[in-house]
Amino acid sequence: MRPSGRAPDEMRAISFETGFTKHAEGSCLISCGDTRVLCTASVEERIPPWLRGKGEGWVTGEYSMLPRATHTRGGREAAKGKQSGRTQEIQRLIGRSLRAVVDMKKLGERQITLDCDVLQADGGTRTASISGAWVALRLAINSLMEAGAIKDDPITAQVAAISCGIYNGTPVLDLDYAEDSNADADANFVLIEGGQIAEVQATAEGATYDEEGLLRLLRLANIGCDGIFAAQRAATK
Amino acid sequence: MRPSGRAPDEMRAISFETGFTKHAEGSCLISCGDTRVLCTASVEERIPPWLRGKGEGWVTGEYSMLPRATHTRGGREAAKGKQSGRTQEIQRLIGRSLRAVVDMKKLGERQITLDCDVLQADGGTRTASISGAWVALRLAINSLMEAGAIKDDPITAQVAAISCGIYNGTPVLDLDYAEDSNADADANFVLIEGGQIAEVQATAEGATYDEEGLLRLLRLANIGCDGIFAAQRAATK
Amino acid sequence: MRPSGRAPDEMRAISFETGFTKHAEGSCLISCGDTRVLCTASVEERIPPWLRGKGEGWVTGEYSMLPRATHTRGGREAAKGKQSGRTQEIQRLIGRSLRAVVDMKKLGERQITLDCDVLQADGGTRTASISGAWVALRLAINSLMEAGAIKDDPITAQVAAISCGIYNGTPVLDLDYAEDSNADADANFVLIEGGQIAEVQATAEGATYDEEGLLRLLRLANIGCDGIFAAQRAATK
Amino acid sequence: MRPSGRAPDEMRAISFETGFTKHAEGSCLISCGDTRVLCTASVEERIPPWLRGKGEGWVTGEYSMLPRATHTRGGREAAKGKQSGRTQEIQRLIGRSLRAVVDMKKLGERQITLDCDVLQADGGTRTASISGAWVALRLAINSLMEAGAIKDDPITAQVAAISCGIYNGTPVLDLDYAEDSNADADANFVLIEGGQIAEVQATAEGATYDEEGLLRLLRLANIGCDGIFAAQRAATK
Amino acid sequence: MRPSGRAPDEMRAISFETGFTKHAEGSCLISCGDTRVLCTASVEERIPPWLRGKGEGWVTGEYSMLPRATHTRGGREAAKGKQSGRTQEIQRLIGRSLRAVVDMKKLGERQITLDCDVLQADGGTRTASISGAWVALRLAINSLMEAGAIKDDPITAQVAAISCGIYNGTPVLDLDYAEDSNADADANFVLIEGGQIAEVQATAEGATYDEEGLLRLLRLANIGCDGIFAAQRAATK
Amino acid sequence: MRPSGRAPDEMRAISFETGFTKHAEGSCLISCGDTRVLCTASVEERIPPWLRGKGEGWVTGEYSMLPRATHTRGGREAAKGKQSGRTQEIQRLIGRSLRAVVDMKKLGERQITLDCDVLQADGGTRTASISGAWVALRLAINSLMEAGAIKDDPITAQVAAISCGIYNGTPVLDLDYAEDSNADADANFVLIEGGQIAEVQATAEGATYDEEGLLRLLRLANIGCDGIFAAQRAATK
Repeated sequence: MRPSGRAPDEMRAISFETGFTKHAEGSCLISCGDTRVLCTASVEERIPPWLRGKGEGWVTGEYSMLPRATHTRGGREAAKGKQSGRTQEIQRLIGRSLRAVVDMKKLGERQITLDCDVLQADGGTRTASISGAWVALRLAINSLMEAGAIKDDPITAQVAAISCGIYNGTPVLDLDYAEDSNADADANFVLIEGGQIAEVQATAEGATYDEEGLLRLLRLANIGCDGIFAAQRAATK
Repeated sequence: MRPSGRAPDEMRAISFETGFTKHAEGSCLISCGDTRVLCTASVEERIPPWLRGKGEGWVTGEYSMLPRATHTRGGREAAKGKQSGRTQEIQRLIGRSLRAVVDMKKLGERQITLDCDVLQADGGTRTASISGAWVALRLAINSLMEAGAIKDDPITAQVAAISCGIYNGTPVLDLDYAEDSNADADANFVLIEGGQIAEVQATAEGATYDEEGLLRLLRLANIGCDGIFAAQRAATK
Repeated sequence: MRPSGRAPDEMRAISFETGFTKHAEGSCLISCGDTRVLCTASVEERIPPWLRGKGEGWVTGEYSMLPRATHTRGGREAAKGKQSGRTQEIQRLIGRSLRAVVDMKKLGERQITLDCDVLQADGGTRTASISGAWVALRLAINSLMEAGAIKDDPITAQVAAISCGIYNGTPVLDLDYAEDSNADADANFVLIEGGQIAEVQATAEGATYDEEGLLRLLRLANIGCDGIFAAQRAATK
Repeated sequence: MRPSGRAPDEMRAISFETGFTKHAEGSCLISCGDTRVLCTASVEERIPPWLRGKGEGWVTGEYSMLPRATHTRGGREAAKGKQSGRTQEIQRLIGRSLRAVVDMKKLGERQITLDCDVLQADGGTRTASISGAWVALRLAINSLMEAGAIKDDPITAQVAAISCGIYNGTPVLDLDYAEDSNADADANFVLIEGGQIAEVQATAEGATYDEEGLLRLLRLANIGCDGIFAAQRAATK
Repeated sequence: MRPSGRAPDEMRAISFETGFTKHAEGSCLISCGDTRVLCTASVEERIPPWLRGKGEGWVTGEYSMLPRATHTRGGREAAKGKQSGRTQEIQRLIGRSLRAVVDMKKLGERQITLDCDVLQADGGTRTASISGAWVALRLAINSLMEAGAIKDDPITAQVAAISCGIYNGTPVLDLDYAEDSNADADANFVLIEGGQIAEVQATAEGATYDEEGLLRLLRLANIGCDGIFAAQRAATK
Repeated sequence: MRPSGRAPDEMRAISFETGFTKHAEGSCLISCGDTRVLCTASVEERIPPWLRGKGEGWVTGEYSMLPRATHTRGGREAAKGKQSGRTQEIQRLIGRSLRAVVDMKKLGERQITLDCDVLQADGGTRTASISGAWVALRLAINSLMEAGAIKDDPITAQVAAISCGIYNGTPVLDLDYAEDSNADADANFVLIEGGQIAEVQATAEGATYDEEGLLRLLRLANIGCDGIFAAQRAATK
């Protein structure tokens, strides 16, 4: 029995509030249950030094939690003077995941930064960030294409992410905080429409799992991401 | 003529969306025109070392802008490894302003941190932060009093803040970004209900001003803060 | 009754020892009672990146206290690895105050850095820094003009600063440490010769004050700055 | 055809030189082909603050590359003043992997730090670090048990790690640098003797892969880790 | 021929202005020609953690240059966020040199920090810092003894320092900046009254030197320190 | 009697394992008794900004201890976010010592970085670093000359370093950790073949010493360095 009463393969309600902020070229507030992340896509006509002169663009991600996004207040990373290992790990994942679906030649010599700021956390903030970042990116690319700055769509596919885990011995989809903090195993899947895997990060905590367990989690993730893909399409139509 | 078409003594629409996040003891999203700041009040049962054993509490503030709160993306302070002088100046101001209306003995040995995170900026983020922080603080104190943790209300008065400036030679109330970046003089007033001044920060940029100019700005600020006081009362009733 | 026995509108003895160090283009040791600040003006033939190609110069300020300038030793900021919020706030104020009286076109594409290092502190170090920095700047500009590097004097006026406060209910001029640490309200005024205001930073501590109180402090500040203007003229003649 | 001429399921030669340094409670130099990592286990009779009083121990990992472990010299992280996101990600992985096979109650209130310093890199430094850290840990625990400081063996199983990837369309085991920098997909598996998974980190680069591809990589990893488990046993007998 | 016209064994004029600042327990401004260093001794009734409970005290040194102590302005270390290797090297030297003449048991469980802040530099700032720090320390200890806090004098001897070098092939005493920047070899000697050596730091720059050369520099240093010892005694009588 | 049973003028066994790592242009593992330092020379075709356009090269050194090189584990400097004063002092010494024997014109516009990473420490790590760095440099220059990148040998002489000290009243050569931590005086000598001195750093700890003592230590150092020079020649033939 899950704390939320959800079925093992039941995802939380997901929604995208697009245009949440007015300055960014693309933005949305993604809600996955009580987890809420503000995702913005910022287009800059400059690229990192090591890419200059190659006719290619770049996509990168940044991630942060507001100090009181969580049950108890966490220290502000800007005040501590450095980003935690967890933050860096997550923002590297966001960047890699979105780059997996962008054709850098078609993007041209510009950089898009995907800022994912968690306003409220209830489990699954990194996966919500990826799913929301795709929407922000889609909207930013749309506006670049409408303005004639880009001709061919550089986005090759949708990308979405979801967590799965083994809770009380049962594989379940889309862990919330109550499950996440007690799960035996926790896996984040970044999937691409059409059944391709962009990234798997599966960690045993407490108990370990075997090939069979990994496959069952992957299949749950496919179910979840199909739902997110549909919601992304609805939000960006 | 103001860019927004407002009268010189006309403030932008102000609203407080209370309970914007669920974990904080008190929270609101304050909107002053297009400026939107998420203010949370976090109660912790610990105090700074230099206050221990005095039977008093502490109130402090922190401030940050999301990277794309602004027209062009700004670097993330956590990534740079330090907070800017501007950020530190503002969060010191927020803390002082709120402490001016709290009786630390009645608060008891606990600390309340007021986090002000700017989701969208259009001028006046520091003053909106103060006005919103008071609402978050009021809600947090209310819940402490309902829970019986505090007996006597430690809040002694309302506090609110507003910017005024001299734009094209005319003193105007509540500068938005278009005015702020072209004003001859810029002043932030932190006022306490009943006509008292908690803080004045008035800076001449380009032109200077004299005693008469300062008084006219102060009187505009009184008009503005009266409006904010009413909105704060409505939001926390 | 003030701890020093001074009348409410009586300033401490002020003096400028010009040429205190030999390498700087302009330098002075300002003494305001027991507060002593070494102010140097350094001319560099380079400007910040964002000013390049505009034909304008720049004036900036830096501030620091020697560790044992104070009653008890304070940690060295270089050893801590960062400047405090207070330090940054003060050096931003010094820069703004001096820029208010410099014509950047006439200065030409060069930067002048005003270093204010407090050798001994007894209240009012930030205001003494501003008054002393003006003298150092005046001397540096004089030498540039004598050398023919600048034709038209870029300094448009004198600027000076003084603190005022409400001590035991009475508005007083030029707080020393004994008063500063017990004042009900504390205000720093940066004034320009001829009665113009460059900056006001007024903070209520403990008690608040009203329009009338602010005006009385401003008038005291005018008395004080008139004295400083005369001393600056004598020192730089 | 692999650059090294190895068969797709052929691992590089692996060896452990135990007792490589004399001060550490356990140490080894692991060589996986030309990748060489010095792993030391340091026992300290203290635990992190959040574990105090629980009667449990802690195991943590640290990772670094010497500046010239790589083809071109990389900057020293100590000189830059911070550890990269990659370094932090890897050391978090090392810690989690080893904790998966330690019973913290049996370890008792002490901390073991596994330092993994890469002397020479040729692909697979993070997985070699994990396999080598287990040997260093085993030796350190042995000496604690011989000294009577620990009664029951806190190590519950062997843990080892290996990378696999898709190179030129073929799944291959144990990528070296020449393969790693051109692989379509790259996966690191941390496995526990008996067929259990501790961690999977699989990333598509360039091409993505599907369920079938993930399974084939996992099976290669099982082959590789069986070889490492045997070598670990031989080294620590 | 030396740029200053001094004889090879002729030191610059040296003077100590004691009591230069009023808050420190001991202070002096040492002038060696145009090199001027403000030295303060601060007594604190606390010791470093690793000394607790041993009944011993501690003496430590800190060193800094004001940004415009030099011919061209140097960046402020507090603004850069770290102390240079040169600064750290010098302050470690100051601490070791003074500790060589203090009996820590007689000092008792207190720490004395010797802050050496260079107001103006013209070569030999580190050696002037040591010679001046001894005077500040002597004055601070005197006041502790007068107050009855210490019974037996913990200072066992005088310590002083001077630089020597080989300039145009000739060994010379007390290098000024013009010589220092062109010397073939540069050596700093920290000597104790009675002919004992506390520290030698001799570096060949450009040319090297041999045993004979080192001895000749040491003998010059003895001449110089005898003069400083006399000046220290006169200043602290 | 020395703890190791060595005669006062007896050095520990010294050996150089050249080519210890394969990527560096020159490398060796130097062993001085149980002290082992990995020294690599990295050639880069770029020079520091202040040298550009002068037709000269640069040689610099970096130093670090692995965390468990020592008896008890030391914190990792990269994790602390800064290099200690000791580390900076040592790496400055390594750079100066090697530059003393390199003709920068003959080296041409390239930089060689000498990384000295201590794998195991038993006293004398800084001197071993210098002696080993010379071997790594020699090997790197050899390969540059063989490749025809450099015509005339820029190395003007051998350089080596050794520590001496006064232990139980007797001058002894090549202190190990047991002696170093109890010595009355400790001196590091950097010598150049042919009897020239590159650097002396002599510190009295506990007891001081006089001219005679310094000379006796220097003579021991000459004995030791003669042995190191021979070993260096054998290793690089």
